[in-house]
Amino acid sequence: MEIGTLTIVGVGLIGGSVGLAAKRRGIARRILGIDRNPARLAFALSRGAIDQSSYDLSAAARSAEVTVFCLPVDEIAQQVLAATSVGPADNLFIDTGSTKTLITRTIEASSPTTRFVGCHPLAGSEKQGVEHAEADLFENKLTIVTKTASTAPDALEQATRFWQLLGSSVRVISPEEHDAALAFTSHLPHLLASALAGILPPTLNDLTASGFRDTTRIAAGDPGLWTAIFSHNREAVLDALAVLSKRLECLRNSLSTSDWATLNDQLLQAKKVRDALGS
Amino acid sequence: MEIGTLTIVGVGLIGGSVGLAAKRRGIARRILGIDRNPARLAFALSRGAIDQSSYDLSAAARSAEVTVFCLPVDEIAQQVLAATSVGPADNLFIDTGSTKTLITRTIEASSPTTRFVGCHPLAGSEKQGVEHAEADLFENKLTIVTKTASTAPDALEQATRFWQLLGSSVRVISPEEHDAALAFTSHLPHLLASALAGILPPTLNDLTASGFRDTTRIAAGDPGLWTAIFSHNREAVLDALAVLSKRLECLRNSLSTSDWATLNDQLLQAKKVRDALGS
Repeated sequence: MEIGTLTIVGVGLIGGSVGLAAKRRGIARRILGIDRNPARLAFALSRGAIDQSSYDLSAAARSAEVTVFCLPVDEIAQQVLAATSVGPADNLFIDTGSTKTLITRTIEASSPTTRFVGCHPLAGSEKQGVEHAEADLFENKLTIVTKTASTAPDALEQATRFWQLLGSSVRVISPEEHDAALAFTSHLPHLLASALAGILPPTLNDLTASGFRDTTRIAAGDPGLWTAIFSHNREAVLDALAVLSKRLECLRNSLSTSDWATLNDQLLQAKKVRDALGS
Repeated sequence: MEIGTLTIVGVGLIGGSVGLAAKRRGIARRILGIDRNPARLAFALSRGAIDQSSYDLSAAARSAEVTVFCLPVDEIAQQVLAATSVGPADNLFIDTGSTKTLITRTIEASSPTTRFVGCHPLAGSEKQGVEHAEADLFENKLTIVTKTASTAPDALEQATRFWQLLGSSVRVISPEEHDAALAFTSHLPHLLASALAGILPPTLNDLTASGFRDTTRIAAGDPGLWTAIFSHNREAVLDALAVLSKRLECLRNSLSTSDWATLNDQLLQAKKVRDALGS
């Protein structure tokens, strides 16, 4: 038992999974759930993802050694700052947001003494809600833990250990490195999947097969959550989109000039990249 | 038992699955396998996907009421024409290629009396080889059966019944309609998945999660097979790519002008399309 009280702010898919994982692995004596949605709190309680529910963020954060914010990226900094206005200085605050730079800078600028460490478990889904939460969501996944010039070494260590206790491996990089990387590995793919789904003529729905469904699966993600992510990581996504547009233009050129040898080389290079990732 | 002898030309993933499905459902007395690769033929025999193997295409086609060509799209027309130069006029020839217009036109122009019906079971995979063949590959899937002005009604009916006996539902459209539709639902998605995989910096491999892997899964498909598909359906794919490029430009514009309300609308419209397709 590493933690006396663990507070989870936002008990959706990720927050609920943090609770279930912490329970199964016995890493906290008590788990408090905070959410503005009463139905979600009740459901999290009934699933056993939290032990107690509350609407009092400040009190719940004050009593917790670790508070984890599992919220849309555009709500995290504000909620962390609201929670840290009072309470012991050695409490740890972490998050699970898909962007890191703006969140971290906002918190560090407004509250330099807060022990905040920005985190991102790469374990999302197009699904939402505590009904899809899973105790093993973080097992054998990678969690990115971010470090800035201001990050306290013991806070970084504690955050790293938290995710490891939930079954995840951890990589420590800067918030800026995180956002540049995720622009390629997550945010641009979402934009592309959305573009592809968006242009499908409705008459062709029945003529889609597993390839189309795989390629567009993430386009089912929540538009509000994703708009916030794009807003936070606008520049890096635009940069990644420019790289993709160049690549698409090369592919288009091979097609339009019937240069099949070059097209084959382009497809082969991409296949090698994809094969290296596994299924 | 509907068919005396069924000949399968090309015993890879699709050909092997046709054999396994025909066996399980007892629709042919004898299944002959043709392939230029001896190891593949031996493996298809050992898996029970075929009863006998042969390298003599003409003889195997002559003795079969139904011959199905499960080959790369750029080999189908030539092999059908080679097989139909001799033999009873009432034998049925079908294929499983991912493009239909060029194949059908070539065969109809060179051999107008051949009872050929171009087919496409929407049941592919990025995997290859008879080791991945499955007896239930066509169950609850859709097979497109194509009809031209020259298609004999009884040949169309026989081809339709063949796929239904393997567990598939059938839709009859023209080869041109097929190719225009598949440009959107299969060929463009492949190009996009390949573009996205192709630009991933190798240092970011470990930072990909299920979203990236879903979106790029089909990029692992065989480059040779796909180059041939793009070559056959060049114009329709270029048309679909132009539609996608416009959509990407709209998304890029929302990002670059920070027009989050419009971006949210665009993501929402695409989500609705994707939600309608199911998982």
